Amino acid sequence: MAPQLDSYFQQVDALSDAFIERLRQAVAIPSVSSEAARRPDVVRMGQFLADELTKLGAHVELRPLGKQPGTDLDLPPVVLARYGNDKNKRTILVYGHYDVQPAQKTDGWDTEPFELTIMPDGRMCGRGSTDDKGPVLGWLNAIEAHKSAGIEFPVNLLMCFEGMEEYGSEGLDDLINAEAKKFFADADAVCISDNYWLGTERPCLTYGLRGCNYYSVEVWGPGADLHSGVFGGTAQEPMTDLVRIMSSLVDTNGNILIPGIAEQVAPVTAEEEGLYDDISFTMETLHESLGSKTTIFDDKKRTLMARWRQPSLSLHGIEGAFSAPGAKTVIPAKVIGKFSIRTVPNMDIDKTNEAVYRYVEDVFKKLGSKNSMKVYAQHTGKWWVASPKHWNFSAAAKATERVWGVKPDFTREGGSIPVTLTFEQATGKNVLLLPMGSSTDGAHSINEKLDKRNYIEGIKLLGAYLHYVAEEPMN
Amino acid sequence: MAPQLDSYFQQVDALSDAFIERLRQAVAIPSVSSEAARRPDVVRMGQFLADELTKLGAHVELRPLGKQPGTDLDLPPVVLARYGNDKNKRTILVYGHYDVQPAQKTDGWDTEPFELTIMPDGRMCGRGSTDDKGPVLGWLNAIEAHKSAGIEFPVNLLMCFEGMEEYGSEGLDDLINAEAKKFFADADAVCISDNYWLGTERPCLTYGLRGCNYYSVEVWGPGADLHSGVFGGTAQEPMTDLVRIMSSLVDTNGNILIPGIAEQVAPVTAEEEGLYDDISFTMETLHESLGSKTTIFDDKKRTLMARWRQPSLSLHGIEGAFSAPGAKTVIPAKVIGKFSIRTVPNMDIDKTNEAVYRYVEDVFKKLGSKNSMKVYAQHTGKWWVASPKHWNFSAAAKATERVWGVKPDFTREGGSIPVTLTFEQATGKNVLLLPMGSSTDGAHSINEKLDKRNYIEGIKLLGAYLHYVAEEPMN
Repeated sequence: MAPQLDSYFQQVDALSDAFIERLRQAVAIPSVSSEAARRPDVVRMGQFLADELTKLGAHVELRPLGKQPGTDLDLPPVVLARYGNDKNKRTILVYGHYDVQPAQKTDGWDTEPFELTIMPDGRMCGRGSTDDKGPVLGWLNAIEAHKSAGIEFPVNLLMCFEGMEEYGSEGLDDLINAEAKKFFADADAVCISDNYWLGTERPCLTYGLRGCNYYSVEVWGPGADLHSGVFGGTAQEPMTDLVRIMSSLVDTNGNILIPGIAEQVAPVTAEEEGLYDDISFTMETLHESLGSKTTIFDDKKRTLMARWRQPSLSLHGIEGAFSAPGAKTVIPAKVIGKFSIRTVPNMDIDKTNEAVYRYVEDVFKKLGSKNSMKVYAQHTGKWWVASPKHWNFSAAAKATERVWGVKPDFTREGGSIPVTLTFEQATGKNVLLLPMGSSTDGAHSINEKLDKRNYIEGIKLLGAYLHYVAEEPMN
Repeated sequence: MAPQLDSYFQQVDALSDAFIERLRQAVAIPSVSSEAARRPDVVRMGQFLADELTKLGAHVELRPLGKQPGTDLDLPPVVLARYGNDKNKRTILVYGHYDVQPAQKTDGWDTEPFELTIMPDGRMCGRGSTDDKGPVLGWLNAIEAHKSAGIEFPVNLLMCFEGMEEYGSEGLDDLINAEAKKFFADADAVCISDNYWLGTERPCLTYGLRGCNYYSVEVWGPGADLHSGVFGGTAQEPMTDLVRIMSSLVDTNGNILIPGIAEQVAPVTAEEEGLYDDISFTMETLHESLGSKTTIFDDKKRTLMARWRQPSLSLHGIEGAFSAPGAKTVIPAKVIGKFSIRTVPNMDIDKTNEAVYRYVEDVFKKLGSKNSMKVYAQHTGKWWVASPKHWNFSAAAKATERVWGVKPDFTREGGSIPVTLTFEQATGKNVLLLPMGSSTDGAHSINEKLDKRNYIEGIKLLGAYLHYVAEEPMN
């Protein structure tokens, strides 16, 4: 039986001005986590959330995370909250973050970044509007609309809002692991609203992310940087060796040339083959976001597969070489090449590392160089794939169809959101990524915005999702 | 008939304390040309030279060079001077520079860089001691010793001392070209003392320098830097293309892979073959200055030939890519690779550029990339080779043997000293490079020094050279 949602939806519409006002207040707090001078604003933003939640009747705890490593700066607290404690209801754990990327008007913004500005076309511009203050407030707004409509809240809601997401989520993993059997103990599923639709029209549910292994290759020889006039032609140059190694890793069409990578990739099943055709995505949208037509593939299906379910290798740069404008005739004594591999099922971190190390060492050996070389992983992070057939997803799909009138795309993403895997591993529960914003929101760019429609319908979606979750049979 | 030099030599020894005092005063003026705040010190150093020269009876002119391009800063003046104006004597034009490299005690100096500190082993430590205040004062000291000994000065001496050598000799070329038929009109030959012995024991005369063509290769595609999670595997990456181009230019053993370069190199003659065996140079010295044993060749002859008379190609770095420590998962939208080719006789600048452009375009075309590419020369500079059989060199060789008791090495250098070619082309006269310091002086490093022996014997050498020049038959 479909849940009764009409009065909830009406209440969201009726309160929409108040919800936009709440977002305006949040955007006005410049909670930039990467700037030490803004740390008090980040803390103030956490307190704002705690106060709002308390007023709504939630139990709130501000959890300190200690000092930021390498500094005397206190990390902003994690806001933990519980709304409802009924043993007969399911418990849903939601995550979001209240810090934002840096922003200055002079970066090229059309409006003041820390003033929510509503355009005639419905764009609500401001830093953090879509990433991630809008979605975080979505949960608060859903509670308020229920209270105001006099409808029973359908689940127990656990909330975990952090203030360091844009700066590496310092300290969060430890907290999640520590609270898995405590504050988060009775969570039945997890929902994260911190990603985006694939385009601008069709909502999506995201069930997979690629992992990322980041490598350094160091080559060194001379005792110090050399003058190329004096030593050019007489010394073996580390840069020459490094560039030859880097050129052996990947080709122009993105083919990874390292043996032992492709072999680990899960084969495409007939069922998966069919999934891509219906996805709301066009090459025109991709060209627009890319700013050019320099794509590897010309069709949607191979492009989506390359982004979601194939590994990729990108060369990021070289440390230690001349990198400024102009000309400098230096022979760098030590250079460090940086590259990363986006990983997918069923790639294994250790097997992948070993394949990379073996190959790079082999290529270097064949150069016959007297220089020294070492290759190592700077950091590794596993891919994540959830079951989209889990009741957590089917509830979200039904809610999406109810609110938006279309079936959502089931998507994966090329990038990583490490906290996703942390929640899955710590709680052992299904994790759903349920986005509010669309692909054009410009989360980390100038003129970040959240469309008013996505905000208001998104609040309805979050509430509706909780109602469907409450009714969905176990699977 | 060998010139009578004994009383001159005696006078140099007698005045050695005064000459060291003069160097102490010069080193105490921190004439760092690359630091705007030090510009008054550079000007003060030029004035110091002008005053000393005037006291010695020279005619001095301070020539302004206008503003430093792109700044409101006056360039330091060129000190032009003439000592003697006897139509029956030869006229020798000498060049040096009175500015120095930056230096701070905290860079790792054992002594205060702008206080000349004399060590028990005879090292006179201080910024500018060997590069190039010692040699510049050498000419002044030679005049003083002649006056004081009552010996007639053997030639007319024209002097050109600049204050911007360590910052690209801004404005100097124009002045040299303008004065070629004026202040420098009666020069019969040119002598530059701004380089070093090949080792520490045997003096040398330098008759050749390599040229330098510096290239940029730009590759671009996307409209802005991309997130490798989102776009990795779907977009053709400029960095991948650039690294493949750079890896095709040169191999680990320094072989230039661009057709049309080796073909231009002058063949080794039987006469040249024999030159290398006697040169005072060991692989041990090279390993010491390199700080490692990562040389391409294991023998002296091939190493010297590679440095002096073979072209070389060095990869300097990449602009636009990630170059900081740590990890950043960016796909750079536009990257600019930098490399240079050291050129030798009989390479032609235009033919070399064309060979580079054609090859790079061909390699890029074969990649089949949708990205865009352009390759161009940032700057070019011709190689220089003088005739070591000219009377200017034979006079210097005889003077060296007289002062040091050994025949000098006739050497070339791998780097470029562009002013050498400018003087040759502007005056049409033979140019000699006559070094005072040795290979361990550390001209641009911390703990720069000039050995007391090299300074005092070097003053004798400069004076002796002028006497032999006066007697050498035309050739």
